[in-house]
Amino acid sequence: MATGDIVLGANQYGKAECRVVRIVRDTPVHEITDLNVTSQLRGDFSACHIDGDNSQVVATDTQKNTVYSFAKEHGIASQEEFLLTLGRHFTGNFEWVEGGRWESELYSWERIETPDGPHDHSFVRSGQEVRTAVVQIVDGVEHVVSGLKDCIVLKSTGSEFHGFPRDKYTTLVETTDRIMATSVTAWWRYTSSDVDFNARYEAIKASLLTQFAEVHSLALQQTLFAMGKAVLEEFDDVAEVKLSCPNKHHFLVDLEVFGVENPGEVFFAADRPYGLIQATICREGTPEAPDAWATVPAFA
Amino acid sequence: MATGDIVLGANQYGKAECRVVRIVRDTPVHEITDLNVTSQLRGDFSACHIDGDNSQVVATDTQKNTVYSFAKEHGIASQEEFLLTLGRHFTGNFEWVEGGRWESELYSWERIETPDGPHDHSFVRSGQEVRTAVVQIVDGVEHVVSGLKDCIVLKSTGSEFHGFPRDKYTTLVETTDRIMATSVTAWWRYTSSDVDFNARYEAIKASLLTQFAEVHSLALQQTLFAMGKAVLEEFDDVAEVKLSCPNKHHFLVDLEVFGVENPGEVFFAADRPYGLIQATICREGTPEAPDAWATVPAFA
Amino acid sequence: MATGDIVLGANQYGKAECRVVRIVRDTPVHEITDLNVTSQLRGDFSACHIDGDNSQVVATDTQKNTVYSFAKEHGIASQEEFLLTLGRHFTGNFEWVEGGRWESELYSWERIETPDGPHDHSFVRSGQEVRTAVVQIVDGVEHVVSGLKDCIVLKSTGSEFHGFPRDKYTTLVETTDRIMATSVTAWWRYTSSDVDFNARYEAIKASLLTQFAEVHSLALQQTLFAMGKAVLEEFDDVAEVKLSCPNKHHFLVDLEVFGVENPGEVFFAADRPYGLIQATICREGTPEAPDAWATVPAFA
Amino acid sequence: MATGDIVLGANQYGKAECRVVRIVRDTPVHEITDLNVTSQLRGDFSACHIDGDNSQVVATDTQKNTVYSFAKEHGIASQEEFLLTLGRHFTGNFEWVEGGRWESELYSWERIETPDGPHDHSFVRSGQEVRTAVVQIVDGVEHVVSGLKDCIVLKSTGSEFHGFPRDKYTTLVETTDRIMATSVTAWWRYTSSDVDFNARYEAIKASLLTQFAEVHSLALQQTLFAMGKAVLEEFDDVAEVKLSCPNKHHFLVDLEVFGVENPGEVFFAADRPYGLIQATICREGTPEAPDAWATVPAFA
Repeated sequence: MATGDIVLGANQYGKAECRVVRIVRDTPVHEITDLNVTSQLRGDFSACHIDGDNSQVVATDTQKNTVYSFAKEHGIASQEEFLLTLGRHFTGNFEWVEGGRWESELYSWERIETPDGPHDHSFVRSGQEVRTAVVQIVDGVEHVVSGLKDCIVLKSTGSEFHGFPRDKYTTLVETTDRIMATSVTAWWRYTSSDVDFNARYEAIKASLLTQFAEVHSLALQQTLFAMGKAVLEEFDDVAEVKLSCPNKHHFLVDLEVFGVENPGEVFFAADRPYGLIQATICREGTPEAPDAWATVPAFA
Repeated sequence: MATGDIVLGANQYGKAECRVVRIVRDTPVHEITDLNVTSQLRGDFSACHIDGDNSQVVATDTQKNTVYSFAKEHGIASQEEFLLTLGRHFTGNFEWVEGGRWESELYSWERIETPDGPHDHSFVRSGQEVRTAVVQIVDGVEHVVSGLKDCIVLKSTGSEFHGFPRDKYTTLVETTDRIMATSVTAWWRYTSSDVDFNARYEAIKASLLTQFAEVHSLALQQTLFAMGKAVLEEFDDVAEVKLSCPNKHHFLVDLEVFGVENPGEVFFAADRPYGLIQATICREGTPEAPDAWATVPAFA
Repeated sequence: MATGDIVLGANQYGKAECRVVRIVRDTPVHEITDLNVTSQLRGDFSACHIDGDNSQVVATDTQKNTVYSFAKEHGIASQEEFLLTLGRHFTGNFEWVEGGRWESELYSWERIETPDGPHDHSFVRSGQEVRTAVVQIVDGVEHVVSGLKDCIVLKSTGSEFHGFPRDKYTTLVETTDRIMATSVTAWWRYTSSDVDFNARYEAIKASLLTQFAEVHSLALQQTLFAMGKAVLEEFDDVAEVKLSCPNKHHFLVDLEVFGVENPGEVFFAADRPYGLIQATICREGTPEAPDAWATVPAFA
Repeated sequence: MATGDIVLGANQYGKAECRVVRIVRDTPVHEITDLNVTSQLRGDFSACHIDGDNSQVVATDTQKNTVYSFAKEHGIASQEEFLLTLGRHFTGNFEWVEGGRWESELYSWERIETPDGPHDHSFVRSGQEVRTAVVQIVDGVEHVVSGLKDCIVLKSTGSEFHGFPRDKYTTLVETTDRIMATSVTAWWRYTSSDVDFNARYEAIKASLLTQFAEVHSLALQQTLFAMGKAVLEEFDDVAEVKLSCPNKHHFLVDLEVFGVENPGEVFFAADRPYGLIQATICREGTPEAPDAWATVPAFA
């Protein structure tokens, strides 16, 4: 018979998915930043949970208002700096707010091309991926994890898969030439809050894509490891990379029955099920930071 | 009391959303075409509906197999030509198939940029929109309607809205400077099946976007009309343009209450409700073609 | 060379997806109605499209306000009556509004069951389908089309498919016992605006589901026809039924290779591609009403 | 300068979202179980990641085949037992597979009601929620976490929110009567693998819903705590409950400007942003089990 008191454990609350569009219009050539921001606070909120006492509950509506006002007051130099500013505000101004979690997604826009060149104030949404960030403040320590998602890549050759063990349930045929396709979700942890986050993002994305392109792959796992390794080799202030990659199967269609050859040309792109490969690549000797990863929508 | 016999009216059937990835690998520099194809047949299928007699029902599985085999046998020069080839096959080879509807979506890929240049066989999905096409064959006549969707555009200024009538339920404040944003769905009808569909697509898309960018807008309706008009003025073989554009509201956030000015810089991007503006722009004197639009996911 | 003037064709505009939750709290036992309402107006809006003259553009914001205020002023006896009330208001109060289209979806809620019985004011969303309606007023005539969607049904036996023609591309094996599953989208046209719409809806839904269950099916087409026919036989004031049903394939998994029998017990539920069967069932001699179906998200 | 070797950290792989429909047809009254199953293995897979050596990589295709074959060989008494059977198989039969993660979702079906009663083999999908489960085997220990998601509930009264602190960014008005609505995601950890999982699920769901209905709420946090507490009080073999609940805002529409009163009757159901309340409720003295929660899509 279980006898312990029933108590409140870990908890957090806030306002999710504040859609902020920030226009910089200091000159006729406007700039646009398009974010989806979530703010969540942590601390001792037992009184609210147990007695409905809201005297320390910074309303989620207040968090939302702060997000919008800060977009003007501080601007949005990068997702990471904006989230850090929010985090420092909430932990600095409310004694009982011990920490929290601030997350965002960034959507890319490019100028519309007209016969007169790129337009001053008209944009089209574009981009190959969504850029993401999670900042957490835990026991006074700032953790910055950045990433990307929905980055769909495909190699039409340069991928093999064979040599796997066979048991009673194994029917898969070995192959030395297949399509490899995935939708990359990546997260990397910075060891500093003082980084040129925008420049670094572009460099890390380029590094991940280059590895995907250039590695002759014997397994999607091998490609993932190479992608993470390249980032760590290139950037000292990145401590860990986590990758989650569905193996989006492209099955070669059997056309022989119709008297038609199909030497790696026509594929059926399947939806479900799909392989799912998830790995952490890290630097030996670097202290772990489980707090940085807590509640990051990660995996392994 | 209703007394007429209950009978079968308009009907069509087929296989929907065949995901075809076609690689051209004649040289080490591969090309990729990524389509989602739907094939539907029309004719006298009463026996199947009324008695379950399938003797004239070209199986949807057979339609799917044909799609995949044709991707190899005929290649995919353009969506429109591929759909026309499918349509001619089914109406030409099965006496009782009087017509049908063939639809597809095309997803864009670009080469991954590596330090050694664009990669030969590695791609990243990208693009500002999804390209669409619907071919219908009705009474032996071929109708080609092409389009695009999910093309999200935004102007950070150059848009006004005022002068609208006010009744008891009107609370909207007039404005001479707002964000205008929409997700363009466009369809246009060709008067010929013999067009350089890929080149024409790029030109029409450019024309639509340029108008969106350049028109100083007093109403989203005005922008739509200008977009459609530009296409018709530029291309004689386009007979009609249909546009469906949600007005994706971006509300200026009131920061004054926090002592912060907000001169058109910080916006809340709302989800629902949204305005919905739909219009047809056409050329006077051009014969209408209701058959071309039947079952096109259009609107007005 | 095309020479005609470029003119505005069919058009409509309004506010889409106004999410209205209406509570009736006249007694402690509350009632809830949860709707998603779209209002669109038609008429001569050339001045707005061509010149940006909004003097006759009833703002979409005004349309939205009217929806919310009418939810209180008139209540929501049924979707259809609510949409008719909106339509009569807009066509009756703005001379230049010649017609329009009012659409809604209804989401179902049931009372939460507690140890003390169904709760007075606490609800859980449920339901097997979404209930839909489109009212159009064209040339002073009211058209009411009602329907349902996302109603997913499955028969684990009682479905066959054989006797179809075979060509070069046919590989499908005939079967006398398969799973038949679909997601029913149905629309039916009433010949009157004066119907007990809620009671009729329940009766029609029951009729559709009963036919799906009871018909021993030789083709999904046969099942669709029986479903529509039953509705027309039962209800004189329904003139036509349109059904759109994906054939959600459930493939029997081949377990023999593992030494395991699979007599119709384990299936793989596939996503894409899927069959797509669409049919109209109508009563001979009943006048057609193409205006009623214009812009209904229908099909065949 | 970072100097440590770059190494593989935590990782897992497998086949995701195997859609299994299992029919029990021992009598003419069929039973249906509809699952979405993911299998992922853990162990020392360094050789694959670093060298592309697949000799110990149980193919994801093999995992999928096993899922389907086990659905017949072992049946699906409950999600949890099915996942445990899969986990014991993979960890028991492949020496190097040290553990893993097996997850599923269950979709509910009910019999179609016909004039002759509930049908033997025809079903309609329904249900108020999706039932979920995650089984993990870590260092030989089995962890079972079960849950539900997409359970949308609403109270039309019996909810207040006031007494919260006010700062410069606070504009929210206090209320003593509001709609409270959320979509419940719940997870609970069992202390045993030997539970009547189906019966327990129904009892826990009933307990959660009853608390939501009956608690007069001063904050959504208070409701969450009461929901978790009730489960722990009722069931000794549940060690912890985690709840994640968006506060789905329903804003009272201001109709006064139209001369219409709105005493809690007409609401606008907003999409984004939304409050997000997440809490763990646990029993003091019960050992924690972080391994059980690793990779469960949880939160706080």
